[in-house]
Amino acid sequence: MADVEAKVFPIEILREFSTRVFLHFSLPKKDAMQAAEVLACADLRGIDSHGVARLHTYFDMLSLGRINPKPKVKIVHSTLSTATVDGDNGLGLVVGPQANQIAMEMAEKSGSGWASVRNTNHYGIAGYYVLKALERDLIGWAMTNSTKLVAPLWGAERMLGTNPIAIAFPGKEEPPIVIDMATSAAAYGKIEMARRSGIPIPPGWGIDSHGQVTTDPEQTVAGGALLPLGSDREHGGHKGYCLAIVVDMLSCVLSGANWGPFAPPFALRQEIPQRSVGKGIGHFFGAMRVDGFIDKNSFKSQVDEYIRVFRATKPAPGTKGPLIPGDPEREAERLRRENGVPLIQPVVEELCDISARTGIPFD
Amino acid sequence: MADVEAKVFPIEILREFSTRVFLHFSLPKKDAMQAAEVLACADLRGIDSHGVARLHTYFDMLSLGRINPKPKVKIVHSTLSTATVDGDNGLGLVVGPQANQIAMEMAEKSGSGWASVRNTNHYGIAGYYVLKALERDLIGWAMTNSTKLVAPLWGAERMLGTNPIAIAFPGKEEPPIVIDMATSAAAYGKIEMARRSGIPIPPGWGIDSHGQVTTDPEQTVAGGALLPLGSDREHGGHKGYCLAIVVDMLSCVLSGANWGPFAPPFALRQEIPQRSVGKGIGHFFGAMRVDGFIDKNSFKSQVDEYIRVFRATKPAPGTKGPLIPGDPEREAERLRRENGVPLIQPVVEELCDISARTGIPFD
Repeated sequence: MADVEAKVFPIEILREFSTRVFLHFSLPKKDAMQAAEVLACADLRGIDSHGVARLHTYFDMLSLGRINPKPKVKIVHSTLSTATVDGDNGLGLVVGPQANQIAMEMAEKSGSGWASVRNTNHYGIAGYYVLKALERDLIGWAMTNSTKLVAPLWGAERMLGTNPIAIAFPGKEEPPIVIDMATSAAAYGKIEMARRSGIPIPPGWGIDSHGQVTTDPEQTVAGGALLPLGSDREHGGHKGYCLAIVVDMLSCVLSGANWGPFAPPFALRQEIPQRSVGKGIGHFFGAMRVDGFIDKNSFKSQVDEYIRVFRATKPAPGTKGPLIPGDPEREAERLRRENGVPLIQPVVEELCDISARTGIPFD
Repeated sequence: MADVEAKVFPIEILREFSTRVFLHFSLPKKDAMQAAEVLACADLRGIDSHGVARLHTYFDMLSLGRINPKPKVKIVHSTLSTATVDGDNGLGLVVGPQANQIAMEMAEKSGSGWASVRNTNHYGIAGYYVLKALERDLIGWAMTNSTKLVAPLWGAERMLGTNPIAIAFPGKEEPPIVIDMATSAAAYGKIEMARRSGIPIPPGWGIDSHGQVTTDPEQTVAGGALLPLGSDREHGGHKGYCLAIVVDMLSCVLSGANWGPFAPPFALRQEIPQRSVGKGIGHFFGAMRVDGFIDKNSFKSQVDEYIRVFRATKPAPGTKGPLIPGDPEREAERLRRENGVPLIQPVVEELCDISARTGIPFD
């Protein structure tokens, strides 16, 4: 984001503003605070695309009545370790944490818990949910589908979301291992940035509307598609495609949500799918008790040892050696808690626009 | 394998020969047949590297007493939906199916079942285990670690196995979705083949012993390493690295097996790790009851619809459009059941060598 001047805000200001915006739509106080917490988590961890940069979209959807501000989240089916949850078309930022809690409570009783969620909306960063599991010393899992952007390998059109997978494992003295990854080769945001800056993208990120690999970000944005992790057949593009299918199956087909190209749009400018094959989008949460398998202390000590061994890997030329998953986000959080969250001017303008429309002060 | 002449064998001949070889080491009849079945599954599905092509290695390990021919597989810890299994240093081909069964039985009782396995050895193809789950209409999961071959992103040495992940979802009239993928960018076998044929490998598959990306397969085989899925930072190589860590955590750290660079070697020629941090290698099996979430019939109908929608994707130029995970293996199985399994001359020679040493007739 070096091309746009950034203004810095303390996280408390952003969290407070988001909370008040959600309260403006009559969300219960607890839900408004919860939703704001998920956004703040993204802003702190440096996932700029998923924090207050999205607040205007939530604002639009709530303004138009497309999202239910007072959802009654319900378990519609369950066993000792599995549940299907209906999000009542609430904000994913509200439904997600409740469904995640259901999974964690099942895990505490039955060793593991798995919740598939339908009739929900965009839930922020997947990483938020697995961090909540870590607070209870659980191994956490979170997935979600999203609006179509990615072509399957050998396809020439958008059929899948960037369908992220997050998983976290608790450490002892070392930090936890926190994985949070989209199943596409690159983030859409990076292609958007290249387009704005007028620079080419690497081959392997996207295709044009004919399905040809392109280095022109404009071609990918306008009618093209992202490529799955692995990019092409030779480099394992079928594997990224498989991972996106796993997310679709667990989050949507298992809950009764819209999968693949039928995921409803998150933002107003996005095209509405021709068909509906379920309700809303879908999430999937999982939690596993470490002591359902092994002594918790031994596990955490081994995680520590794992981290130390991998940090000591001989580095590739021009690098400082392998990172541990979660390192960059932890470093971002440390800096941003201390110095504040930098927001680019377009995001500041969006927040000012919300302020003007609602009378909630900002800045 | 076009560079080496192949001879074709009916699967029954191969299965019978493998069974008799395992019986030669006094495996119980049931275990010998089970182990041979896992190998036959790989040979039928076209995963040539994991079928009878590995029999000589199992033969060597059993001959040297490095694998226990009569393991007592035990649950050492469990909850309603989780278990840790000790494989008593048996063949993975024997331990794996038993631990998988434990996971499936827990799923039938508690909605889902998850088994982490230590003190075991190479278990064949991960796909075998999820096919067994499909026979019971379960969603199946299988992972395993393996001897180090892959560098973490930004690392210059082998630290991880190719750590495969398999997951399968049952269909109704359409075939099931069967995913079975290594978490490396390419299979080691492909690099071996390129080396034998004296042709370069694509950039993104491997590095040399200094950690530099190389197109010389010899450099990767001799002291270099494979790259994780995604290959480099720009194309998501950190994601493949993360997936390999997930497999290590669930299969090894959770069970008490050797993880990362400490996985014991599968074959005699491989180097013995300097340290041991657990027992044997590790596997991880999972099973989920579809009707723990949703009506089984609706689920399967949606899987059918999913498959039809993805088959109808607009094809990329020069392709016939996206495949459904499991398609190539199903086609291989159809052909090989009809026409037999082609074995290259070096594999035939290995089987003849076993025959000569044991007196078990082959060919």
